[in-house]
Amino acid sequence: MTSQATVDRSVTVDFQTEPARYKHWRLATSGPVATLTMDVDSRGGLVPGYELKLNSYDLGVDIELYDAVQRLRFEHPEVKAVVITSGKEKIFCAGANIRMLAASSHPWKVNFCKFTNETRNGIEDATAHSGQTYIAALNGTASGGGYELALACDHIVLVDDRSSVVSLPELPLLGVLPGTGGLTRVVDKRHVRRDLADYFATKSEGIGGRKAVAWKLVDEVAPRAQWQDIIAERARLTVASSTRLPGSGPGVRLTPLARNRTDDAITYPHVSAVLLRDGGVAEITVTGPDAGAPASIAEVHALGDTFWTLAAVRELDDLILDLRANETEIGTWVLRTRGDAARVLAHDALLLAHYDSDWLAREIVLYLKRTLKRLDVTSRSLIALIEPGSCFAGSLLELALAADRSYMLCGVFEDGDPDAEPATITVSSMNLGPLPMGNDLTRLRTRFFGDDDALAAVGKQAGEPLEAADAERLGLVTFAPDDIDWEEEVRIAVEERASFSPDALTGLEANYRFAGPETVETKIFGRLSAWQNWVFYRPNASGEQGALRKYGTGQRADFDRKRV
Amino acid sequence: MTSQATVDRSVTVDFQTEPARYKHWRLATSGPVATLTMDVDSRGGLVPGYELKLNSYDLGVDIELYDAVQRLRFEHPEVKAVVITSGKEKIFCAGANIRMLAASSHPWKVNFCKFTNETRNGIEDATAHSGQTYIAALNGTASGGGYELALACDHIVLVDDRSSVVSLPELPLLGVLPGTGGLTRVVDKRHVRRDLADYFATKSEGIGGRKAVAWKLVDEVAPRAQWQDIIAERARLTVASSTRLPGSGPGVRLTPLARNRTDDAITYPHVSAVLLRDGGVAEITVTGPDAGAPASIAEVHALGDTFWTLAAVRELDDLILDLRANETEIGTWVLRTRGDAARVLAHDALLLAHYDSDWLAREIVLYLKRTLKRLDVTSRSLIALIEPGSCFAGSLLELALAADRSYMLCGVFEDGDPDAEPATITVSSMNLGPLPMGNDLTRLRTRFFGDDDALAAVGKQAGEPLEAADAERLGLVTFAPDDIDWEEEVRIAVEERASFSPDALTGLEANYRFAGPETVETKIFGRLSAWQNWVFYRPNASGEQGALRKYGTGQRADFDRKRV
Repeated sequence: MTSQATVDRSVTVDFQTEPARYKHWRLATSGPVATLTMDVDSRGGLVPGYELKLNSYDLGVDIELYDAVQRLRFEHPEVKAVVITSGKEKIFCAGANIRMLAASSHPWKVNFCKFTNETRNGIEDATAHSGQTYIAALNGTASGGGYELALACDHIVLVDDRSSVVSLPELPLLGVLPGTGGLTRVVDKRHVRRDLADYFATKSEGIGGRKAVAWKLVDEVAPRAQWQDIIAERARLTVASSTRLPGSGPGVRLTPLARNRTDDAITYPHVSAVLLRDGGVAEITVTGPDAGAPASIAEVHALGDTFWTLAAVRELDDLILDLRANETEIGTWVLRTRGDAARVLAHDALLLAHYDSDWLAREIVLYLKRTLKRLDVTSRSLIALIEPGSCFAGSLLELALAADRSYMLCGVFEDGDPDAEPATITVSSMNLGPLPMGNDLTRLRTRFFGDDDALAAVGKQAGEPLEAADAERLGLVTFAPDDIDWEEEVRIAVEERASFSPDALTGLEANYRFAGPETVETKIFGRLSAWQNWVFYRPNASGEQGALRKYGTGQRADFDRKRV
Repeated sequence: MTSQATVDRSVTVDFQTEPARYKHWRLATSGPVATLTMDVDSRGGLVPGYELKLNSYDLGVDIELYDAVQRLRFEHPEVKAVVITSGKEKIFCAGANIRMLAASSHPWKVNFCKFTNETRNGIEDATAHSGQTYIAALNGTASGGGYELALACDHIVLVDDRSSVVSLPELPLLGVLPGTGGLTRVVDKRHVRRDLADYFATKSEGIGGRKAVAWKLVDEVAPRAQWQDIIAERARLTVASSTRLPGSGPGVRLTPLARNRTDDAITYPHVSAVLLRDGGVAEITVTGPDAGAPASIAEVHALGDTFWTLAAVRELDDLILDLRANETEIGTWVLRTRGDAARVLAHDALLLAHYDSDWLAREIVLYLKRTLKRLDVTSRSLIALIEPGSCFAGSLLELALAADRSYMLCGVFEDGDPDAEPATITVSSMNLGPLPMGNDLTRLRTRFFGDDDALAAVGKQAGEPLEAADAERLGLVTFAPDDIDWEEEVRIAVEERASFSPDALTGLEANYRFAGPETVETKIFGRLSAWQNWVFYRPNASGEQGALRKYGTGQRADFDRKRV
């Protein structure tokens, strides 16, 4: 398996792009309707070694899609409906490129699918919470990941031309799963009956026309002659029912991030990571605002992407993606903050005061939510260190609550800075609702799952800076060692983590982080992705004789027939 | 990995046993209290090649536990509390035997864990629905699977002797997960805070005493001097609050099954399987009752395990376990029934009429429920064929509803038996509540998840025999081909299944079968087991340098440090 798994080694992935640099997508807006046209440059693969035929995609294509979805939210407040369609004849999208998958290492495949899932969840989030509703205009066949992209949209229209279909051919053709949400969304979101879904996922030639509607695989079919009219009408209806919030001013431009990447550090204005490669550790620090909050939401609009919360979240988002893709051997992320808690809370309060009335305030909070969700599904151990000078309050407290463990210094470092104020943490409204995890519960509610008394006790302390002893007693931090024990306890925790099986840690964290109910989103990241990871790793898929390798050779895969 | 993975090839596993033959457990009852004492014979492993030290277990040990749990329900209606304890000094149970795991093939490991999970779920089912409540009396350390067994009990008492602890050392010592429900039950059932749970699962030496109580890892600790009194008192309280139903007569003895196993068939009085090895198919037929239902529940008690429903379920249960363990290359199970639907429905009606008043009626229904749940988590494709002469009604209709697909002949076989009555299926009360899946929804509700109208339409037809066209229109069967198309359609469906990747089919089915909400049970089989399967298969666990192989050698595992 390793011999061919080399395409992903040659590149450091950059998740930053902008429409002018897109190779594969065109983003156009016309009043309240945006059109995202997928027109993949077959020679524009992120890594050499494969051709992106038939609008198939790789990580590079999806990075552009992610960028477009983000920009629509911030740069185009006027947009209320987004039509995703294809610039090719007869094909909407053929899904993830198979030669890319076959030649990719296991970590690359898994990380690629995770990012792809997050982008599709972001599309659903825009539909559900931003009043930017996505319509899949399938002007040709949507197969595999192409259909999965459509499944993330609110409404699917398929051209009715006797040849265009939707299909999930992964299982019959490739021996893998429709693992980018496909299996889950078919039955759990679109309510396709499970036995019909079973048949559908074994029928590589797909289903189109009226049967696709009857089985709920698509919402409607439209003849090619009336295609433009029907899509336009659908967009018009969508715009009319949009819940997009008003707000002052035009969009907020997302300017290029000021990122400095060296071999041992990644630094942005508000976020930095020191890479300690020998220990497999990234020491991440998020810096709080350097001033109080603006006096009004209008000032936030004026500040645009220099407004602290937006700026810091963008940097954190980019850092998470960078470390996940490019630094797979750095298995532990140590999370710190530095700054003034009151300023963090003031920024939070301003955003929440306008969450129901101003599109930008809402978008910033939603973006914070999505970025924190990335942490939840990140296959790295997260350890929060809460020290004097930190500002784990409100939105930034979520970093500690997302961590697998947190250590809070009780008192101060007597040798280092004996006159410092002891660290505090502060629970605020930001922790009590607007930032749910994928399971639809807040991190606090997930933390205290089944213990409503503990949750209520924490809620009562909202707004109060809590020192270590109180934070520990309330269950908000894991341990609160004093200066004498701190260094030893923290060192052991971090070093120990690096000594454990990275796979077992990933499995452990994926289970512990999601107590309580499951949603389509957590089912995709838990149940579906876990099975896909297993299937991907098995020789029946990725071995020399496996289905991924044999695809397109004319030879059949040679399966080990034992059922596991 | 394959060189050592041979211990499981030498044996055909028999899941039938009885207390007189137990090697590893002692079952004693004293009025309403039963005591199950684990005292593993270290030389009594199911397969040669490992010693079962420290009350560690293999599949053979768990087969006895399963048998004991079953017999308590049927043979001991007087029992209301079950104390699980150890016959060893200082150790309750060290979990699954590591050398056994290290030397087992991947399918064996996964199947072993599945059965172990089902047995633990059965313990919880007895507690929740039978009024037989389980108490874990940890008279010594419970580690790994030993603690997971305790987690399945309603109440955990740990001896407080300064050395006995509970622990989940799988991750630090073996590089695998506490995958037999451990991770899920710690946070989702016992509500241990996730960060404490994280620490606990990395601390191989475990946690005992008051901290174990404070962290909710156990319910109470008891000094050894008062041990017997405290356990007896706990059992007394449990008995006093039991919801065990009354009912006539003593227990029902579960006599040995009349099973005939040849190389190409497994036959019982009411259930048979023809093994078509070349095609990878088992053709399973369940035969309905050969007479109407008894006139009273007293007669059911008199019939004991010859009462049709109980007899047929016991046989089906044994067959499922046999095929899963011993016939891993038979990937497709074709499910048929034969008999008189009215008699099936009469048996169902009698049981449901006494479900709330008679322990035996309830136990039979609960056993049917558990056996159908086994089908749901079986990694085989299930295809139901509904033909003339079949009796897919009520309880037996669940077989078709559990299937991934069903085919119902429209009309009759004109060449074979032109005068036959066309097949019908009948929905009854048995399909509308008492037999939920692991997700706590009926198979009908799961099937029509998100489509309440369809479910209501089906409910209106309850009691009506439905011919193929109606069954198809109502969505109760997948396809209803007529005589002309039947053979070809069914042949393609079955042959096609055998051509697909067995791994991808397993993943597909594990996702599609559980639309809707998740429960502790489905989280264990979906999220946790899927991750465990992946971890098990990775070289970091099972490779020559992996942690499972290196355990006990004094050498450290050599991990690939890439996070996936």
